[in-house]
Amino acid sequence: MPNHAMGSDPRTVPGSDPNQRPNQRIGVLISGRGSNLQAIIDAVRAGRITADLAVVISNNPEAPGLAKAREAEIETLVLDHRGKAREDYDRILVAELKKRGVTLVCLAGFMRLLSPVFVDAFQNAILNIHPSLLPSFPGTNAQYQAWQHGVKWTGVTVHLVSAELDGGPIVAQVPVPVNEDDDADALAARILEKEHELYPMAIQFVLGHQWRLEGRRVVRK
Amino acid sequence: MPNHAMGSDPRTVPGSDPNQRPNQRIGVLISGRGSNLQAIIDAVRAGRITADLAVVISNNPEAPGLAKAREAEIETLVLDHRGKAREDYDRILVAELKKRGVTLVCLAGFMRLLSPVFVDAFQNAILNIHPSLLPSFPGTNAQYQAWQHGVKWTGVTVHLVSAELDGGPIVAQVPVPVNEDDDADALAARILEKEHELYPMAIQFVLGHQWRLEGRRVVRK
Repeated sequence: MPNHAMGSDPRTVPGSDPNQRPNQRIGVLISGRGSNLQAIIDAVRAGRITADLAVVISNNPEAPGLAKAREAEIETLVLDHRGKAREDYDRILVAELKKRGVTLVCLAGFMRLLSPVFVDAFQNAILNIHPSLLPSFPGTNAQYQAWQHGVKWTGVTVHLVSAELDGGPIVAQVPVPVNEDDDADALAARILEKEHELYPMAIQFVLGHQWRLEGRRVVRK
Repeated sequence: MPNHAMGSDPRTVPGSDPNQRPNQRIGVLISGRGSNLQAIIDAVRAGRITADLAVVISNNPEAPGLAKAREAEIETLVLDHRGKAREDYDRILVAELKKRGVTLVCLAGFMRLLSPVFVDAFQNAILNIHPSLLPSFPGTNAQYQAWQHGVKWTGVTVHLVSAELDGGPIVAQVPVPVNEDDDADALAARILEKEHELYPMAIQFVLGHQWRLEGRRVVRK
């Protein structure tokens, strides 16, 4: 795998220099603030992720994350899901991603279930980050679910996306303690910091192709 | 709470000297090897648990853990469950424990579901240890379930026992990494070491009564 140390010079942001472009192209899907998108952008700039950021797509025209992408001079696309059947929407998404040569799709707070149309088009090439140690606390508000359940440890999971919600093979996890004086917000903030560390590492690991699936276990080659 | 540092002199094993007996009395329920029972015995001897071991009860006459209890001069009792309805069996268990003044029941590989008869008789005074980070992987073979699921972290949970299997409020947890070269047995062995550390600590915490329930969260007073 090519390893381009791109530094933090904005002129070397992926996509800006076709001659230095690595082979792998990432598409990021967002619905909201895109804080994990920013972590990915930073990691690409710092050379911790050796791939291009090809496009950032939001289903929500108001997603604040779109501004982060534009600021980093990454192409943005708004594909509003309203009024479209799920599979029709997913077909459009797939077409836009394929058109741009995307090889790895990273979900970063994309609040839509993906249909088999999407999952089959990017087999084992869609990543999601989830704010719990899956399989505990799938679904929304995982941090609050964990806090309310009274666990002493929760964490962050990066996983391959299957058609089952938050159910695909696990690429990376990190535990996060629940402190005695935490409320759910304090816990969520501590989890978010770990998300920003873990997601770029997991993306780079997946891009390296030094892994394979054994059943649903992600193991090193 | 009285704090009797009992040392490792076998003559000071709880129960052997009524004048030094703390107020709290533990009953341990086993079905098998009783490795967590041994950890509890060791912790009582070392003064890390300040309570008497009143009785060890097994539903299985062949449980190797019974020998561990006898060796430590703790009363043992075999209550065979076969041929008894669950609630009838639980009534007998409760009667035997109450007769001995047991204030805290510790399950240590006790392979029976407890009915409300039992759970209601020892409200918030039954502990269980489970080899996963609950709520992930309840039920049997939790270590294998975790390994097969491909999690990167699993762990150990000590929880108060409710009528729901492995579902009561969580007292203590510790994460355990799944290593790249682990098979399920290697993972189970690493988890077991942590069980032996965590269970005595959690028992002593519960005995101290410096906690309360908020919803299902166990929080310090």
